[in-house]
Amino acid sequence: MPPPITLLTDFGDRDGYVGVMKGIIAGICPAGPVIDLSHNIPPQNLAAARFTLLNAAPYFPAGTVHVVVVDPGVGTARRAIALQLPQGYLVGPDNGVLSGVFDRVSPADIKAVELTEPKYWRSPQPSPTFHGRDIFAPVAAHLAAGVALTALGDSLDPQTLTRIAIPPAEITTEQIIGSIQHSDHFGNLITTIPAAAIADQTWVMQVGAVEIPVGKAYGEVELGHAIALVGSHGWVEIAVNSSSAQARLRLVIGDEVRLMATT
Amino acid sequence: MPPPITLLTDFGDRDGYVGVMKGIIAGICPAGPVIDLSHNIPPQNLAAARFTLLNAAPYFPAGTVHVVVVDPGVGTARRAIALQLPQGYLVGPDNGVLSGVFDRVSPADIKAVELTEPKYWRSPQPSPTFHGRDIFAPVAAHLAAGVALTALGDSLDPQTLTRIAIPPAEITTEQIIGSIQHSDHFGNLITTIPAAAIADQTWVMQVGAVEIPVGKAYGEVELGHAIALVGSHGWVEIAVNSSSAQARLRLVIGDEVRLMATT
Amino acid sequence: MPPPITLLTDFGDRDGYVGVMKGIIAGICPAGPVIDLSHNIPPQNLAAARFTLLNAAPYFPAGTVHVVVVDPGVGTARRAIALQLPQGYLVGPDNGVLSGVFDRVSPADIKAVELTEPKYWRSPQPSPTFHGRDIFAPVAAHLAAGVALTALGDSLDPQTLTRIAIPPAEITTEQIIGSIQHSDHFGNLITTIPAAAIADQTWVMQVGAVEIPVGKAYGEVELGHAIALVGSHGWVEIAVNSSSAQARLRLVIGDEVRLMATT
Repeated sequence: MPPPITLLTDFGDRDGYVGVMKGIIAGICPAGPVIDLSHNIPPQNLAAARFTLLNAAPYFPAGTVHVVVVDPGVGTARRAIALQLPQGYLVGPDNGVLSGVFDRVSPADIKAVELTEPKYWRSPQPSPTFHGRDIFAPVAAHLAAGVALTALGDSLDPQTLTRIAIPPAEITTEQIIGSIQHSDHFGNLITTIPAAAIADQTWVMQVGAVEIPVGKAYGEVELGHAIALVGSHGWVEIAVNSSSAQARLRLVIGDEVRLMATT
Repeated sequence: MPPPITLLTDFGDRDGYVGVMKGIIAGICPAGPVIDLSHNIPPQNLAAARFTLLNAAPYFPAGTVHVVVVDPGVGTARRAIALQLPQGYLVGPDNGVLSGVFDRVSPADIKAVELTEPKYWRSPQPSPTFHGRDIFAPVAAHLAAGVALTALGDSLDPQTLTRIAIPPAEITTEQIIGSIQHSDHFGNLITTIPAAAIADQTWVMQVGAVEIPVGKAYGEVELGHAIALVGSHGWVEIAVNSSSAQARLRLVIGDEVRLMATT
Repeated sequence: MPPPITLLTDFGDRDGYVGVMKGIIAGICPAGPVIDLSHNIPPQNLAAARFTLLNAAPYFPAGTVHVVVVDPGVGTARRAIALQLPQGYLVGPDNGVLSGVFDRVSPADIKAVELTEPKYWRSPQPSPTFHGRDIFAPVAAHLAAGVALTALGDSLDPQTLTRIAIPPAEITTEQIIGSIQHSDHFGNLITTIPAAAIADQTWVMQVGAVEIPVGKAYGEVELGHAIALVGSHGWVEIAVNSSSAQARLRLVIGDEVRLMATT
């Protein structure tokens, strides 16, 4: 059975664009599952696409083909790429959306190609506005069906790939300074502080003048109260029990948060 | 071929949380269909989740595994459960979201377990905030792949399961008093009055000072006019032809409606 | 392996209606992929459903079964129909939603039936409000599973099918007058001017007093500037680089646009 193909786009859910990509895939590799990560990435928001893929990819079986189509440069000189990593494949534009995943892999373990072989596209003349349909979906389906990465185009040096850099948290034994990197559907605020950084000590969070306790589960604080905890992504996040931390604290992406050691 | 797995959550469609659950399922039981019931249950709204599952489950083939993750108590002492009914399986938190379905089954026909066997989880240390990914999705995939319910944990007495009670309609031959229990995407207002209650007589509906005719199809009244009819769920509902009854009548969940016999 | 079944509805993504249709399909034809085109067609908007199906259908493999349930006349005398075309099947109400696809096929190549054979329905007494569940989904699943079209009901003359007519663009060598027929998730404004009409000359677009250059890719104009180009659907569309043409130009469906020859 072919591996899963995942789709992550900013196409929304009103038009038939996502369905069309699945139609193309069904014509090439009908037997494998096609799984939506999200189609509601804010239009052209490369950082949100990077974050979503980075946090979802580890939960998929080996060999999965992840396709990202958040692509403001479609039709210009930006490269279309496919990567083979130990855990599976990445397909999309070379604009940084894939970099959250491949930056965690040693360059020696990455094979990369520019998609230059029209034989694996929908047609040799792709639409200059919809490479998702004409290049990325058919290429992903061919990969899932067993075509070798190297057949898809010219080899690329992984060092030349476009990256989106997120400033890492500053970590000492007394304090950790990070920032908000994402706000999810529940209004949870996910920071740039990794779980491992807080494992050996106890902490309290400071956000401006507000102190927030650090715990393990939403229910440790009363309804409507804020708590900082290690979220399911493996980052420290701020939540409000049965409500929205974003609505309560009015923080935006990039705002600073601090953890102060209490022991 | 494995039976379908359905997913019903309040995760929304912006983040990758639902995709991650499907990734976990694809790693355990790749061949069966995974079907979304809804991911737009209002956050933590147990009654809406219960209603949606109750009205969808009867249309699925025998053996289907229904997973519900509307779970404000995640990480606290609330139990994680799986049930085997004659028509299939239910997996989710023991907070009442599954009760609309299992309350229609004789307790003698229900097998229930608490999910205490980490062997069928994603890891022995599940995230305290995302049991959907770490417990419910893998357990559902193992059930679909053929693992026996009793392998998943300790047996439970079905009488101890948490229920959400909806006040039943008061039914006499002259009048029926019910209430609004749900409002759907079209603005149709679904009441607590079951279809069978109105089968043998003719009725008119009273909502406050407004009289609404009782009929069979939206098109029996003029565009923009209200009609009460038996909806596809098997409940009496109020609709407005080509418009929204909710917007027109401004009723909310719990508001009283009356049917008066006219014969 | 069975062909794909696609679903296009105005059911939204809050309720379980779409999931229920997939449950019915899974009980009849579990092995084939079921692909969502959109469930966010504006309620009862036949023109938007017609446009979405017309632009998606060409990208699906031969034999695909397309189901449309945008059906304000459900429960009235409007016919339920299924069509067999050289490229696949169409199933839905006879209200024009299917006409964008079948109007591009010679009537001699269309086989049409009215769905009158309850044997292929969910039950002989379908709900008067949800033919998607009780008639269209099971009929589509039976077609995908190999039942012949002619078994589903009485033959129809394709000339009698309901059509939605869109006024074609007026095309001369000096100017082309068309109109806006759709606005997508990105705010791109899709006109009624087909790609072939502009192939042999160079043009400039006039929208009221505004002149818009005609090009090939979004990135040919500066951020925030408008461009007219051939969109991925094969129609001339108006886009704004990295923003929304609809928000900028405030055009609505039906508004006139002109192309003036510049050579």
